[in-house]
Amino acid sequence: MTDSLTLVYETTLQATETTAMKPENASDLLSIASSLDTLWVLLGAMLVFIMQAGFAMVEAGFARTKNTANILMKNLLDFSVGSLLFWAFGFGLMFGASKWGLFGKIDFFGTAGWSGDIPSTAFLIFQTMFSATAATIVSGAVAERTKFHAYLIYSVCIFAIIYPISGHWGWGGGWLSELGFHDFAGSAIVHSLGGWLALAGAMVVGPRIGKYRKGRTYAIPGHNLALATIGVFVLWFGWFGFNPCSQLGISGKNAEIVSHVFMTTNISAATGGIAALLYAWMRYGKPSLSLSLNGVLAGLVGITAGCDVVSASGAACIGIICGLVMVMAVSLIDQVLKIDDPVGAISVHGVCGTMGTILTGLFATESGLFFGGDFKFFGIQALGALVYLLWGAGTGFILFKGIDITMGMRVNKRIEEEGLDIYEHGETAYN
Amino acid sequence: MTDSLTLVYETTLQATETTAMKPENASDLLSIASSLDTLWVLLGAMLVFIMQAGFAMVEAGFARTKNTANILMKNLLDFSVGSLLFWAFGFGLMFGASKWGLFGKIDFFGTAGWSGDIPSTAFLIFQTMFSATAATIVSGAVAERTKFHAYLIYSVCIFAIIYPISGHWGWGGGWLSELGFHDFAGSAIVHSLGGWLALAGAMVVGPRIGKYRKGRTYAIPGHNLALATIGVFVLWFGWFGFNPCSQLGISGKNAEIVSHVFMTTNISAATGGIAALLYAWMRYGKPSLSLSLNGVLAGLVGITAGCDVVSASGAACIGIICGLVMVMAVSLIDQVLKIDDPVGAISVHGVCGTMGTILTGLFATESGLFFGGDFKFFGIQALGALVYLLWGAGTGFILFKGIDITMGMRVNKRIEEEGLDIYEHGETAYN
Amino acid sequence: MTDSLTLVYETTLQATETTAMKPENASDLLSIASSLDTLWVLLGAMLVFIMQAGFAMVEAGFARTKNTANILMKNLLDFSVGSLLFWAFGFGLMFGASKWGLFGKIDFFGTAGWSGDIPSTAFLIFQTMFSATAATIVSGAVAERTKFHAYLIYSVCIFAIIYPISGHWGWGGGWLSELGFHDFAGSAIVHSLGGWLALAGAMVVGPRIGKYRKGRTYAIPGHNLALATIGVFVLWFGWFGFNPCSQLGISGKNAEIVSHVFMTTNISAATGGIAALLYAWMRYGKPSLSLSLNGVLAGLVGITAGCDVVSASGAACIGIICGLVMVMAVSLIDQVLKIDDPVGAISVHGVCGTMGTILTGLFATESGLFFGGDFKFFGIQALGALVYLLWGAGTGFILFKGIDITMGMRVNKRIEEEGLDIYEHGETAYN
Repeated sequence: MTDSLTLVYETTLQATETTAMKPENASDLLSIASSLDTLWVLLGAMLVFIMQAGFAMVEAGFARTKNTANILMKNLLDFSVGSLLFWAFGFGLMFGASKWGLFGKIDFFGTAGWSGDIPSTAFLIFQTMFSATAATIVSGAVAERTKFHAYLIYSVCIFAIIYPISGHWGWGGGWLSELGFHDFAGSAIVHSLGGWLALAGAMVVGPRIGKYRKGRTYAIPGHNLALATIGVFVLWFGWFGFNPCSQLGISGKNAEIVSHVFMTTNISAATGGIAALLYAWMRYGKPSLSLSLNGVLAGLVGITAGCDVVSASGAACIGIICGLVMVMAVSLIDQVLKIDDPVGAISVHGVCGTMGTILTGLFATESGLFFGGDFKFFGIQALGALVYLLWGAGTGFILFKGIDITMGMRVNKRIEEEGLDIYEHGETAYN
Repeated sequence: MTDSLTLVYETTLQATETTAMKPENASDLLSIASSLDTLWVLLGAMLVFIMQAGFAMVEAGFARTKNTANILMKNLLDFSVGSLLFWAFGFGLMFGASKWGLFGKIDFFGTAGWSGDIPSTAFLIFQTMFSATAATIVSGAVAERTKFHAYLIYSVCIFAIIYPISGHWGWGGGWLSELGFHDFAGSAIVHSLGGWLALAGAMVVGPRIGKYRKGRTYAIPGHNLALATIGVFVLWFGWFGFNPCSQLGISGKNAEIVSHVFMTTNISAATGGIAALLYAWMRYGKPSLSLSLNGVLAGLVGITAGCDVVSASGAACIGIICGLVMVMAVSLIDQVLKIDDPVGAISVHGVCGTMGTILTGLFATESGLFFGGDFKFFGIQALGALVYLLWGAGTGFILFKGIDITMGMRVNKRIEEEGLDIYEHGETAYN
Repeated sequence: MTDSLTLVYETTLQATETTAMKPENASDLLSIASSLDTLWVLLGAMLVFIMQAGFAMVEAGFARTKNTANILMKNLLDFSVGSLLFWAFGFGLMFGASKWGLFGKIDFFGTAGWSGDIPSTAFLIFQTMFSATAATIVSGAVAERTKFHAYLIYSVCIFAIIYPISGHWGWGGGWLSELGFHDFAGSAIVHSLGGWLALAGAMVVGPRIGKYRKGRTYAIPGHNLALATIGVFVLWFGWFGFNPCSQLGISGKNAEIVSHVFMTTNISAATGGIAALLYAWMRYGKPSLSLSLNGVLAGLVGITAGCDVVSASGAACIGIICGLVMVMAVSLIDQVLKIDDPVGAISVHGVCGTMGTILTGLFATESGLFFGGDFKFFGIQALGALVYLLWGAGTGFILFKGIDITMGMRVNKRIEEEGLDIYEHGETAYN
């Protein structure tokens, strides 16, 4: 590589010596930079897309055999429905010209109101993949006892209204971004929103039969940890698009930034996994695979807000904190609050998404409290984290209660006991 | 790609004429654009490669436990054998200098006759991955009762002769491309060819034991829908290489085009899945996972011909039509024609590949019938679709009948009943 | 992104205004080339990362149900721990300023001592992914009977000391690279090192209960060949990053080189799989899926050293030789030497890694013996191969013996018989 670059350099120096350069040439350079950035964003879209497969694998793996087809179906369908809704008007609501900082002007099936150096279609595709993440998170928490109809309806509401509106606040030029709120790739905007919606869903639909009996909590082990583990690897892989590609370009100084983001993302995932492993090992006496997997996800969710503004060491700290907090949160939610979340989505996405957003206010190397920043930035981060918590849980309760009252969230007892696959879909996953 | 690079080049030449800018500088810009395009094409090759894993998972998941190793083996081997044959002379037959518009001049182990702005090796690799798709499609339709020997022989014929020759017609400068036939990434050239070959194979080899008894049709459920679902996600992921990277570049205005292709591909997949789900739900009373999965694939196959020339709304229509037609075709082939296709390959790839090619003649925004185009373009699309149908089914019948008469296509009854894994390969997939 | 593009634009406008082209413009071309190369290297890092999932699937698939969670856990953990150690000081030891050609000067948590045209963080990330491969290889060979504690300890030693030191010799400016040793992407430096460490591990920990009884060898079949097959596809996919992206750039003439590397990699994988299949078919009477899978991996490992300097035909030869040698080596190690290696890691990575390094000395088109090269290059390749064999096996014996004497490598008989999952981790993979 060195040789060819040297060649380029020398050739150009010769040109410099003899000639003047035209602006047309500048536009060519910009055009190539834009194409390069487009490639980076489309690569990101691919990687965030494959996270849907990762979520499907994790959720299916942590659930029981009899509900596997149902979970897979949900993950396939919410992405399909969501893609269309986000294209139809979610994108406009999120990125259209801001109305009072609260929501964007809808441009049905279009991208008016957004401009950047890459084709707007590339940005739309990238954001479509992101929107799918928020809705998918919920499905894990309400798995194994929710009606398929109900799932489709609440997915539609999340994709079409809840996610784009609050997304506008932080990313679309809305009031939180005006304040200086920093959530690089969506610890709060995507993950915590999904996690707090999941909390509402899990509370409204109630625990699975047999989970809590006579005041005691029973573990309902997942049917396939191999599937769940491969799913976590796929999510980790996809996160290398989720975070680094959120820079929306790799040309010029972006190359340094995305490399840094790639590194902080990986470090936080690793420390999250190790912290959860060691803490669970001390606390429960065994190194648990399930909690290690969720520790990796906790680290990934936590670093997503600040991956561009914290140092590699800061990323390690955020990963450790999120890994530990996740184990505590799982225990609190499962055993104390007695909220049944089969995959730990509330702890991983809700708690760690909120944590990561706040920790960015501490660890950001330019403006974080630990590096001499003032309280204002920290306060805005905490405010933003709180806003997404309240918005997620609040709209979630309204949505899920509404569905529950009108058509019922939950399948009947017999279907739950015999499995959703055969009753809801007429087929079983394994034969 | 050629156009935009030419544009860059011309712009720079103008600059040269007026201000004596050196061509060396233009060549640097061209060099970087070419490298960028090479990256895009190699990324596409990676993505189309991983579709082999997707096909393996879908086919294995839809088959029974006892034949799983056999299916996996076929998918591994056909790609291995095919890679070598395509390199040896398939590429030349397809992309070499055209002889009467019918086939290319073979350049054994070489790429003479093809020229473009990226290294010919990159193009060869990309096309190698494509060629593997056509052969793999057949394996699903004849699964669970075909001899391993027979499989290897017909794979060789498809890779070495059938696919490259008809590929030449549409993509290699042959007579169909001369007529103006448009099949961007292979709805007809890859998928329908594979699907109609599969029809011939399934008819010659006959239905599995127990599929049709006393005039009734029995469903033989697949052994692992989790595997099949992850396989569909992987195929969808890979299709973001299959279609957008078929542009062979992302520099200049290609960035807009590939972003558009990415979007139409995703929209058609989503609408295909939803249409199949809703139609199957109405028709059979349950939302079927299997048919939703095939609906996604139907949408993907259907959009592949016209993904660059239809609008996003046109893509939605194509997806819906293909999703519906696929469900009808599965029912027709399975229950009326009593042709046993364990994975639905004929309906998904054959029928929807042909449909998508014809629909391009209706929905193309510049020349399609629905947008004021003349009948000529539509006629050429219909002709091309018919040509690949007849070529696929015709050569397929000759090939499979030939194998059946000389060495037998089908394993004996006992092997079929006890499973191909243990008899043909001496090992079982699960222990 | 906006900022950097604006910068480019302004810089160029200034140049235009003053008419003489500024060197800044040359730096813009260089900057875009560097960004493009960074993208290529980060893409490579993603692909090498996903190989961790591939290894996990292959190892888990070839092991028994009762030890699946343990294997998955190891693969998750070694990558997590390794990422941190390599960042902390492994990178420095490998790529820091060379001390007597033996090791690099450690720059704790930093990248001082390395310079190139891409951000050092991108290079660090890419190398981190590579380092994980060497350690992971061992886990397959000692699977199903090794203590989890022991695994963590030896992984730490490999990541932190063994791999970086010998990596320095060949890649970090150490004595082997000074001699002219050529190992493009690590047949010797990564794979054979891992394989010979695995040999030491398997010998020290001893065979699984029931493997060798009364002088006879019993096969212990893996529990899920579907998982193993998908794992091989994922590894093949990841190898398109492992090899082509090791060029560290795609700009300029790199585009030709990486395309060539992509092709030789694919051809060797294909011929390796076919050679192993045919040889095993002749020798054992059946076309074995397990050996075909390992044949593909043998071809991939073998081509990794010389993928940039051999022709496509040379790659085919290397693949064939490695496929055949792998089958012989498995038989020798398993049945004659009675070393129990559940996944064939010693044969695939150790034997074929060494073979590929030596074969590069024969098949390299510029300096290989078969193309008129002198014995010197061949001798250096053979020397390098021997060095990594001795270093791997030697440090391996010291390491594993040390662990065995102090804390014990092996779980007790009851745990081994009932499965490591439940005893070591308190959970089973399947329920």
